[in-house]
Amino acid sequence: MLNFNYSIPTKIFFGNGQIKVLGKEIKKYGTKVLLVYGGESIKKNGVYDEVIDQLKGEDIPFWELNGVKPNPRIDSVREGIKICRENKIDFLLPVGGGSIIDCAKTIGAGYYYDGDPWDLVIGKGKIEKVLPIGTVSTIAATGSEMDNYAVISNLETNQKLGLFHDNMFPKFSILDPVYTFTVSQRQTAAGTADIMSHIFEVYFSRTEGAYLQDRMAEAILKTCIKYGIVAVKEPKNYEARANLMWSSSLAINGLLSYGKESMWSVHPIQHELSAYYDITHGIGLAILTPYWMEYVLNDETVDKFAEYGINVWDIDKENDKYGIARGAIEKTREYFISLGLPSTLREVGIGEENLENMAKKATDYQGGTIGSFVPLNYEDTLEIYRRAL
Amino acid sequence: MLNFNYSIPTKIFFGNGQIKVLGKEIKKYGTKVLLVYGGESIKKNGVYDEVIDQLKGEDIPFWELNGVKPNPRIDSVREGIKICRENKIDFLLPVGGGSIIDCAKTIGAGYYYDGDPWDLVIGKGKIEKVLPIGTVSTIAATGSEMDNYAVISNLETNQKLGLFHDNMFPKFSILDPVYTFTVSQRQTAAGTADIMSHIFEVYFSRTEGAYLQDRMAEAILKTCIKYGIVAVKEPKNYEARANLMWSSSLAINGLLSYGKESMWSVHPIQHELSAYYDITHGIGLAILTPYWMEYVLNDETVDKFAEYGINVWDIDKENDKYGIARGAIEKTREYFISLGLPSTLREVGIGEENLENMAKKATDYQGGTIGSFVPLNYEDTLEIYRRAL
Repeated sequence: MLNFNYSIPTKIFFGNGQIKVLGKEIKKYGTKVLLVYGGESIKKNGVYDEVIDQLKGEDIPFWELNGVKPNPRIDSVREGIKICRENKIDFLLPVGGGSIIDCAKTIGAGYYYDGDPWDLVIGKGKIEKVLPIGTVSTIAATGSEMDNYAVISNLETNQKLGLFHDNMFPKFSILDPVYTFTVSQRQTAAGTADIMSHIFEVYFSRTEGAYLQDRMAEAILKTCIKYGIVAVKEPKNYEARANLMWSSSLAINGLLSYGKESMWSVHPIQHELSAYYDITHGIGLAILTPYWMEYVLNDETVDKFAEYGINVWDIDKENDKYGIARGAIEKTREYFISLGLPSTLREVGIGEENLENMAKKATDYQGGTIGSFVPLNYEDTLEIYRRAL
Repeated sequence: MLNFNYSIPTKIFFGNGQIKVLGKEIKKYGTKVLLVYGGESIKKNGVYDEVIDQLKGEDIPFWELNGVKPNPRIDSVREGIKICRENKIDFLLPVGGGSIIDCAKTIGAGYYYDGDPWDLVIGKGKIEKVLPIGTVSTIAATGSEMDNYAVISNLETNQKLGLFHDNMFPKFSILDPVYTFTVSQRQTAAGTADIMSHIFEVYFSRTEGAYLQDRMAEAILKTCIKYGIVAVKEPKNYEARANLMWSSSLAINGLLSYGKESMWSVHPIQHELSAYYDITHGIGLAILTPYWMEYVLNDETVDKFAEYGINVWDIDKENDKYGIARGAIEKTREYFISLGLPSTLREVGIGEENLENMAKKATDYQGGTIGSFVPLNYEDTLEIYRRAL
């Protein structure tokens, strides 16, 4: 186990009806609110009204930034900063999924930055302070409600990049599983794949002796596998939605990665798909993950994949280890298919046209090599894209 | 899964050499330090010198309260408060195990209370504020380094009781597994039993659908079972000490109990053993736990015990569920014995003399009924003590 510094300051209000704390919690940190959201979904499912009731009930003035898209654009960030500065807004309230929360986090960082906020995304500028943020999460997926990361896209430059800062942890997040009842089958499936991918990124690591972290990772993977399919089939199953929602936060808040070396692999490869084709993040991950697993399976990694097969998929440990490893990868693929997710790039309209450009960008952004479990160069990355066609 | 409000604000600096952050961390919260510790052990193993080096290196003035005993006495708390008030001390630095940390937490609460600090323990007085606390942990056991609880004893009244407050969370804790290399075999075993008992207290619950929490509980139990015996046999095994140390914090910081109904059972029964006989907390737990499990095994609880047997002890799920349950309880007992721990009260010098008084006190403190997995009244508690003789 490696040394680590643990700090997860976000408070979580979990469960049905927790929206009632919203107004009072906001007042601990701010006086004027920017409500950040996407399209019509939170108006249709009633979440918008519940939030507005809370704000009005506590006499908290608020402004709105709506129309924030999945794979949130830097344009929305710029617009949000403008509204905040014009109105001296001192608290950000994203209501939605990871894209909405990521947009708000970047608005919060950009608010205190003199130049264009894209500088902060590409590392040209430095984050010093961040406006306080509270979130109302409406999907189990990115875990952005309990971490200090954000991912922002720039469609002009075909770039999708991450930024982080300790002050980007939300002060609090309200997680009401009922708010996810109206998430579509496809988005539920994609969200489950996203959570599982966050776990894979840190589970498949070369760090020795982080036994506790690995067993906890398996615990959350088993939870996703059990309840992802339930939530797809029974969208109003509270138990399934609750287990997925809490899994999404714990998968990425650091609990599983503290003490392990884990340079991510599949996310950087996937990000190019979203940057070039604007496809749903979790769908790209579901397609790529089994191909990545097959590609990196070798004599040095087979034990880890066998561990995965035995502990997560309950494959008989008496089998030979390559058999267990391949069985586990196949079960992973079959599971994503059972959720209704595509398993090839062609199914989502991606052909050979950009594979080389994407492989080049993906590796360039990582300084030439992606990941550390099995470091991947340009050729490796291109080959994974090709196999996934 | 039940609703919950999650807040675990303690920062953790985990790993060998992390003591180097001590001085700078203290300066974020205070200017004058009360160093709280027990006997000679931290002087023998070098931890005391490392702490002093840090304080001196940052020119932080400090006072000392030493001689704090296991099952810390209210007398030590009174003494600590006196030193703090006389010297306007504004930061508490317990260096040691749970008893030392619990003593410091109670000093921190008592500092701001006008009356006798025992009032706060018995609920006669109310905790309003707490001095900031940072800990240097030297044993994997109570988890006090990352929670907001303390347990204090009063040998005059034969009382051992808990108190808690949100401000009793340490601001930070330094967990260096090397500091636990010199913990004796017996204390290592008792600490492991204590961690496992904290998990049992929340794992064995009637809450339905907290699947994620239960799988994580099993993950930490498996870690304890794997490494407890290793640490007993190879006290300088870093991997074992690290896994146990991090398990101790995660077992009780709320991660496993948020979302579950869990009134503790074995701890209240054990506390009377320590109050009457001053025996090591973890040893009392190791003795009582299997007897408690056998006593509460019935048609309503057998499924949970079978789940425990299958998922933690790898018992074949094809067996009948009572067979699995009884097998799991027997494995629990055998495991504690394998660690070198006693399995009966007589082995630690406890006879029939106080059983009735202890059963009465244990149940009285809990309002007549202990626990909620299977609520235990006076007769139940007395019977468990008797069987454990």
